[in-house]
Amino acid sequence: MNNQYELIYEGKAKKVFSHNDGDKVIIEFKDDATAFNALKKAKFEGKGKLNCLISAKLFEILSNKNIPTHFLELKNENAMIAKKIKVIPLEIVIRNTAYGSLCKQTTIKPGTVLERPLIDIYLKNDQLNDPLITKERIELMNLISSQDLDLIIDLTLKINVILKSFFNNIKLRLVDFKLEFGYDLNNKIILGDEISPDNCRLWDLNKKNDTIVSLDKDRFRNDLGGLIEAYTEINRRINDFI
Amino acid sequence: MNNQYELIYEGKAKKVFSHNDGDKVIIEFKDDATAFNALKKAKFEGKGKLNCLISAKLFEILSNKNIPTHFLELKNENAMIAKKIKVIPLEIVIRNTAYGSLCKQTTIKPGTVLERPLIDIYLKNDQLNDPLITKERIELMNLISSQDLDLIIDLTLKINVILKSFFNNIKLRLVDFKLEFGYDLNNKIILGDEISPDNCRLWDLNKKNDTIVSLDKDRFRNDLGGLIEAYTEINRRINDFI
Repeated sequence: MNNQYELIYEGKAKKVFSHNDGDKVIIEFKDDATAFNALKKAKFEGKGKLNCLISAKLFEILSNKNIPTHFLELKNENAMIAKKIKVIPLEIVIRNTAYGSLCKQTTIKPGTVLERPLIDIYLKNDQLNDPLITKERIELMNLISSQDLDLIIDLTLKINVILKSFFNNIKLRLVDFKLEFGYDLNNKIILGDEISPDNCRLWDLNKKNDTIVSLDKDRFRNDLGGLIEAYTEINRRINDFI
Repeated sequence: MNNQYELIYEGKAKKVFSHNDGDKVIIEFKDDATAFNALKKAKFEGKGKLNCLISAKLFEILSNKNIPTHFLELKNENAMIAKKIKVIPLEIVIRNTAYGSLCKQTTIKPGTVLERPLIDIYLKNDQLNDPLITKERIELMNLISSQDLDLIIDLTLKINVILKSFFNNIKLRLVDFKLEFGYDLNNKIILGDEISPDNCRLWDLNKKNDTIVSLDKDRFRNDLGGLIEAYTEINRRINDFI
């Protein structure tokens, strides 16, 4: 990134820079991959670019369906220009199929298709290991008003309907995904962060038998190999369809 | 326990035996103490008796205030006769002051007096480490109907009002406590388990300065010593007051 931009924030997978226009930021996608709250780390050349391109397309699809997002335009293949937001420190996970931590914290078996989508909310706090949080705890901590929380939950359910259908068209099962929201400069809640195989579980529906073929960060979490190939395949299917 | 009774269930701190009357069970309180899901274990001679006597008194106080409980009568100093129930596999924790796990999973500082009581629900499952569970997960697992869950929450809030006031009278601060409920033979929800310093946090209000004086299982959890002395003091204050 050019010197003219000031680094505002560096996360595990992205850097956020200032923009000449104070209402905007530049989000650069890194090649770093982390899992289990950064206990496991690696670098995959080309991951940043793929996540940036995939996120841009998915944000466009959502915008076209009237979901407010922070995405404005691509700056280059590795970076996007986005609205500046005040991030709400909650990670909103929505699940269509049981997998991952849900199956370690309940008796629900991995692969179970849920009767209806389940929303799990986590406190975005690395030091505390992003713990699961209840609505009652959110309220007590005065993190966000209950009206705003309801709005976020409503948006998440709508986004799930749109993305589930979109991924189904390109033969991918949307197992679960994580969203982050923030307040824009007008104090309106909009979708932030990214939507990519780093924070979506996507299973290939083009397969012969019952095995799970993960085309997402589980390839890194579970040492399956072929992460870049999987992300490239997701990007290819999205572009072939649009 | 006499041979005529059949052991139905053995938990970490209690044994449950059959009773000649099929509607009843005998609950024997053990001297074993466990913490952190039994990673830490010890035996304290006399703890079983103290918890049995304290629980009996507290169940009587609640019964007198129209809270339905499983307690019927003491069999001896170590055992009580109780209604047979089908235990609901949830641990209902209610907190008046922030302490323990709440402070490891949120940014709320230990000792913070909460604006209103907080209810945290945990799945009673040793293999899974009794994880925190949300209402949405409970609903999805079909563990209990949402009406029954509301009833349990309502009972817990009422019990908290009664016990908080009672303990205040005997100069103890009721920081938090854990309850378990079950269905009796008429399918009515009643309070089960025990109410003792094993599952209540009680801080001594008879102290000069701001230090926390725990008269509960934190003496064992946090290696403070004097567990039997603390439980004996709780039992003495209860009996002096009644």
